[in-house]
Amino acid sequence: MLGRERADYMDIRIIDGGVTAPKGYRAWALGAGIKKSSAKKDMAMLLSEKPAVCAGVYTKNCVQAAPVLWDKKITDGGGSVRAVVINSGNANACTGEQGYKNTQTTAQTAARALEINKEEVLIASTGVIGVQLPMDIIEGGVRDMAANLEASPAAALEAARAIMTTDTYEKVIAAEFTLSGKTVRMGAMAKGSGMIHPNMGTMLSFITTDADISKAMLDKALREDVEYTYNMVSVDGDTSTNDTVLLLANGMAGNPSVTEEGEDYRVFCAALHRINEYLAKKIAADGEGATKLIEAEVRGARSLKDARVLAKSVVGSSLIKAAVFGADANWGRIMCALGYSGGAFDPCKTDIRIKGGAQELLLAEKGMAAACDEEKASEILSAQEVSIVIELHDGEFGARAWGCDLTYDYVKINADYRS
Amino acid sequence: MLGRERADYMDIRIIDGGVTAPKGYRAWALGAGIKKSSAKKDMAMLLSEKPAVCAGVYTKNCVQAAPVLWDKKITDGGGSVRAVVINSGNANACTGEQGYKNTQTTAQTAARALEINKEEVLIASTGVIGVQLPMDIIEGGVRDMAANLEASPAAALEAARAIMTTDTYEKVIAAEFTLSGKTVRMGAMAKGSGMIHPNMGTMLSFITTDADISKAMLDKALREDVEYTYNMVSVDGDTSTNDTVLLLANGMAGNPSVTEEGEDYRVFCAALHRINEYLAKKIAADGEGATKLIEAEVRGARSLKDARVLAKSVVGSSLIKAAVFGADANWGRIMCALGYSGGAFDPCKTDIRIKGGAQELLLAEKGMAAACDEEKASEILSAQEVSIVIELHDGEFGARAWGCDLTYDYVKINADYRS
Repeated sequence: MLGRERADYMDIRIIDGGVTAPKGYRAWALGAGIKKSSAKKDMAMLLSEKPAVCAGVYTKNCVQAAPVLWDKKITDGGGSVRAVVINSGNANACTGEQGYKNTQTTAQTAARALEINKEEVLIASTGVIGVQLPMDIIEGGVRDMAANLEASPAAALEAARAIMTTDTYEKVIAAEFTLSGKTVRMGAMAKGSGMIHPNMGTMLSFITTDADISKAMLDKALREDVEYTYNMVSVDGDTSTNDTVLLLANGMAGNPSVTEEGEDYRVFCAALHRINEYLAKKIAADGEGATKLIEAEVRGARSLKDARVLAKSVVGSSLIKAAVFGADANWGRIMCALGYSGGAFDPCKTDIRIKGGAQELLLAEKGMAAACDEEKASEILSAQEVSIVIELHDGEFGARAWGCDLTYDYVKINADYRS
Repeated sequence: MLGRERADYMDIRIIDGGVTAPKGYRAWALGAGIKKSSAKKDMAMLLSEKPAVCAGVYTKNCVQAAPVLWDKKITDGGGSVRAVVINSGNANACTGEQGYKNTQTTAQTAARALEINKEEVLIASTGVIGVQLPMDIIEGGVRDMAANLEASPAAALEAARAIMTTDTYEKVIAAEFTLSGKTVRMGAMAKGSGMIHPNMGTMLSFITTDADISKAMLDKALREDVEYTYNMVSVDGDTSTNDTVLLLANGMAGNPSVTEEGEDYRVFCAALHRINEYLAKKIAADGEGATKLIEAEVRGARSLKDARVLAKSVVGSSLIKAAVFGADANWGRIMCALGYSGGAFDPCKTDIRIKGGAQELLLAEKGMAAACDEEKASEILSAQEVSIVIELHDGEFGARAWGCDLTYDYVKINADYRS
């Protein structure tokens, strides 16, 4: 069993578009001037024409940004949601009472402009910590966006670009599937690059759907899937103050409401998983300075927990990340990372294989070096997507985790982030 | 209270020399040819003229190298020790039964050459994982060293150089103190640079003393002190398969044997702490590619455990390490690292200060930005030793941890370690 039960993806069709792909969603983005470079977009707005039920999963960092505190109250309370306002360039974290007031004011400004309640407006921020938001810029931006919202794919794409910080590309996906004969859509955008780890890094993800689904089932679907997707991504071991995943469902597809586990819930979860896994891998591959995606797949573990801990330890190891950057098949570092992870396994039964660019190579067998062609190993590790497969022969549980290589550019980006 | 009760160092005098400074110890080192570069020394031997009691602390990685398994049996068994054989260039880890046999053969060869029992010979290895030791080279080297052992400071220095891998300088110290009127000495050498973290990285430390002390008190002294020194060092979050700290006491100083807690034990522990802290900081400062030492000092924590966890999280954060490299006073990342550490604290009461080159600056007060001079901050962070002082105003416990900055060279060194 490979972690989350492998959903049958045959019924999920990837389509063009992003958060505006499902019925009833509009978006807009603009460069309000929060980021130093005025050419860069730094605000986005998302509106659902009808009230949406909403599930939220947030950072586990005990230092939480003002917008996280605001959103939590709303999604935990179970109230319906109409809009999301996002800014990049400033995290509104470690900003005290004033920071929280600024989040409230942003929601109030959006509510007035959109003629909705401020408790229907969620907020997300990402960027520098410890600096108050420039409220004149924010408020002007909110009003401007409210007047321009569009259901177009272009607006969804621009919104995905506006939420980026050190990301090098936007992360957008949409899918279509069928619930009890009705066509349902799901769309999403995410950002995240540095500072990404275990309990979610500065990672924002916004998922929209026109499915009709109860708050309870929406919560369950999101909470469970995050564990197998965003929480299996590691870029550098740091966990942010602002991480947020929001999933809005406005019911406009007209399907019979999903209120219990069953076939429709299963398909909904499969679609959600496909979207979240896609975004999680895109985030991992776009780690700061990264040149390739690393996937660690653990098989044959004694428990799911062991499999997860072992897989994450491998993608989280700086030494392995640097070795993959250098295309150096240093499997001893993989054994070492498994060993200090805290996950249970028997080193003497462990096989390690690498895969990349359609090639595969056994590096270690039963915990010891396998006779292997170093040149072929180096070739495999030069692929854009490198997979490290760890077969423990110790049980039937498996897990996958994603990370990226550690490069000179990671250091460069983070040595002077604020300049 | 700052972690370990601050020992009164007034009675501890730092003296010249290393592991051969105490009475009855001899050492030798040579370039046997294990490392690719034949100019580099890669083997060292240490002999105590009289049987020594010995305490050992080892890696907590569940993948343990053959020499760790060998040494553990001996130090746990309580048998006396006469010699230590160390090689660099090859870790003898993930080498299976053959690897363990090779460790035994090394001990046997040394025992024959020195005319002692093989159970009196401890072994330590560091270097590449997963490759069998070149036994002809090792055995020849052992015999060669046994014939040349010297009590000179030069031999101690060469031994300290021979155990280095990516270290850029040798780590050597010796001290003198008085136990019940008798002059006692302690000497040490250590290596460690990359791969260093929590439960000790590829870190080897060998401490000799001519004190007369019981096995029980020696064990207690070492086990406790390691927690406040080597285990508070973090270079990159990886924990090695080979970490070993050995403390030999041969009793040749002729002091009344230390068999219980009391004034003599207190002074002995103070000397041990001074030596271990010195080596731990040297190891941190010599982290692969590092340009400076980072010390995180947490004050006013609710418990010692919280203080330790919080301090280690700060020196272990890649983002903070990169920011210090870039002399960027990004205190938000410090708050963030405290937040995800798992240690208890109240962000709203937290002050953050930096110190370096005799200057000091408040960066954050009560969890929010303090008005500060960015230029001065950058100047402080450009010092060779940077201290981050975190005052939690939440209790009376404290701890210090050490790490280094993250640089381009770290990536370079680790992208192609084996070439």
